[in-house]
Amino acid sequence: MEKLDTAQFRFDGRKKFKTDVPTTSALLYTDAADHTRQMDALSARMDQAQNRMHADEHYGLLVLFQAMDAGGKDSSIRHVFRGVNPSRFKMAAFKKPSEEDQKHDFLWRFWQELPERGYIGVFNRTYYEEVLAMRVHPERLEKQYIPKELLPKDTETLWKQRFGDIVHFEDYLHRNGFPIVKLYLHVAKEEQGKRLIARLNDPEKQWKLSESDLEEREFWPEYLRAYEDTINATATEQNPWYVIPSDDRPNQQLIIAHILTELLEALPTTFPETDSGEAQKLIRKIEKQDK
Amino acid sequence: MEKLDTAQFRFDGRKKFKTDVPTTSALLYTDAADHTRQMDALSARMDQAQNRMHADEHYGLLVLFQAMDAGGKDSSIRHVFRGVNPSRFKMAAFKKPSEEDQKHDFLWRFWQELPERGYIGVFNRTYYEEVLAMRVHPERLEKQYIPKELLPKDTETLWKQRFGDIVHFEDYLHRNGFPIVKLYLHVAKEEQGKRLIARLNDPEKQWKLSESDLEEREFWPEYLRAYEDTINATATEQNPWYVIPSDDRPNQQLIIAHILTELLEALPTTFPETDSGEAQKLIRKIEKQDK
Repeated sequence: MEKLDTAQFRFDGRKKFKTDVPTTSALLYTDAADHTRQMDALSARMDQAQNRMHADEHYGLLVLFQAMDAGGKDSSIRHVFRGVNPSRFKMAAFKKPSEEDQKHDFLWRFWQELPERGYIGVFNRTYYEEVLAMRVHPERLEKQYIPKELLPKDTETLWKQRFGDIVHFEDYLHRNGFPIVKLYLHVAKEEQGKRLIARLNDPEKQWKLSESDLEEREFWPEYLRAYEDTINATATEQNPWYVIPSDDRPNQQLIIAHILTELLEALPTTFPETDSGEAQKLIRKIEKQDK
Repeated sequence: MEKLDTAQFRFDGRKKFKTDVPTTSALLYTDAADHTRQMDALSARMDQAQNRMHADEHYGLLVLFQAMDAGGKDSSIRHVFRGVNPSRFKMAAFKKPSEEDQKHDFLWRFWQELPERGYIGVFNRTYYEEVLAMRVHPERLEKQYIPKELLPKDTETLWKQRFGDIVHFEDYLHRNGFPIVKLYLHVAKEEQGKRLIARLNDPEKQWKLSESDLEEREFWPEYLRAYEDTINATATEQNPWYVIPSDDRPNQQLIIAHILTELLEALPTTFPETDSGEAQKLIRKIEKQDK
């Protein structure tokens, strides 16, 4: 398997992200069998690195998935983390906030689901919806019960405040041993349309879609603009964004697997040192016990 | 009841706090009966303001208690909140962090206990221990599993980072409708000594103390210095500290009750507007149903 230059997808604040970057990229696999073989190899490496992270007990990795509908969040999560030990893995999918969620500050429900050290935590949709969907539909702010007199008159100021809150929160987590990988699955509108039609033609999937989902498509340019601003305002060296070309699902999965494998392997984690003399002593003790 | 000038106890970043401020202040009560009468009056006002905050659904109040041992945290909480509706009140006492707590970032366990809108939340000991007890005993940092390579070489830098994290976190909460009142119960070392001896002479209380609690007394100057730095670094106009003279317990309770009553009453909360015609219509409906 060739090494993939993942830096091409990374935004860490040095270069600007523009939403006209391609939603496709050079295919990394020749056929289904080749894809499976490569994914298996990456899975095995990820599992090993994750196992070491767990033994080390100092780091936890938080992986954020953001995308338009049908951008491939669920399928990526299913395929990329297939080989990872599920007892050191924690996934949380965030849909509409509950009444209890709304009665707290907007980060609260995400704080409840943070991974502990040694774990990979995955958020399927994230607090970034607070500056994406919320920005496209600012009327939803009403439901958050934030006192009106505390909201900036100009909503642009509000989004800037929230960018600052998010950057500070993520920087804090990073300094405490929780690096954050932020994945934006970038899909073309026409490709999304095809996927939605395919869903509607599938009796086992059509229940997932309603008219309101289709209405969101009409805000496509507003969403793109919100993504552009958000990624540029929150991409940092410590907690970068990766923009994943996502029109081809198998390729998307390979790119994500490459990125995560690299990051997990780069964490300075080690197995706790053990004295091999000590292990030999314990072996002799067991042998004596069982004689 | 006279109005108390609570500003004399407030530190909001404009004036410096020095730990040689007195631990006593002019007595606000003449005798036990007078004290009870005043506390009852303040309780009633607090309950009313809290009821309005609950109906309004936009604000929540977070009250933090910090003090040396025997500084009066438990007794203040018991007496000051006596008259408040317990179903809109949430108290969390933080002792030694559990293994699960240590496996997260240091703010995590506090995030789990934040009040929702309409509630008074009380923290008995707080995340400020992370820059107080932790600063006096930096060797305890080891237990937090923070990767060594992420810790600043110079621990002073670490405390500064944590001050920044705390100020940002509190500012975020404030902007989202959760003002924070920070109470430092300031007690003289000799007064603390008397209280500890009284506890040790009380068969129902002596179990609360161990030798390690007494060892902490030897770090008194280090704790005072840590409080001084912490209060000066984290007192803001939005989320001020109040330094409560605490050598006299009944007086301490009155001062705290005055401060909280004032703050609750000052929140711009209102009962939801109702149309009195609508209420009359509903009354007629009930009368008809029960005819």
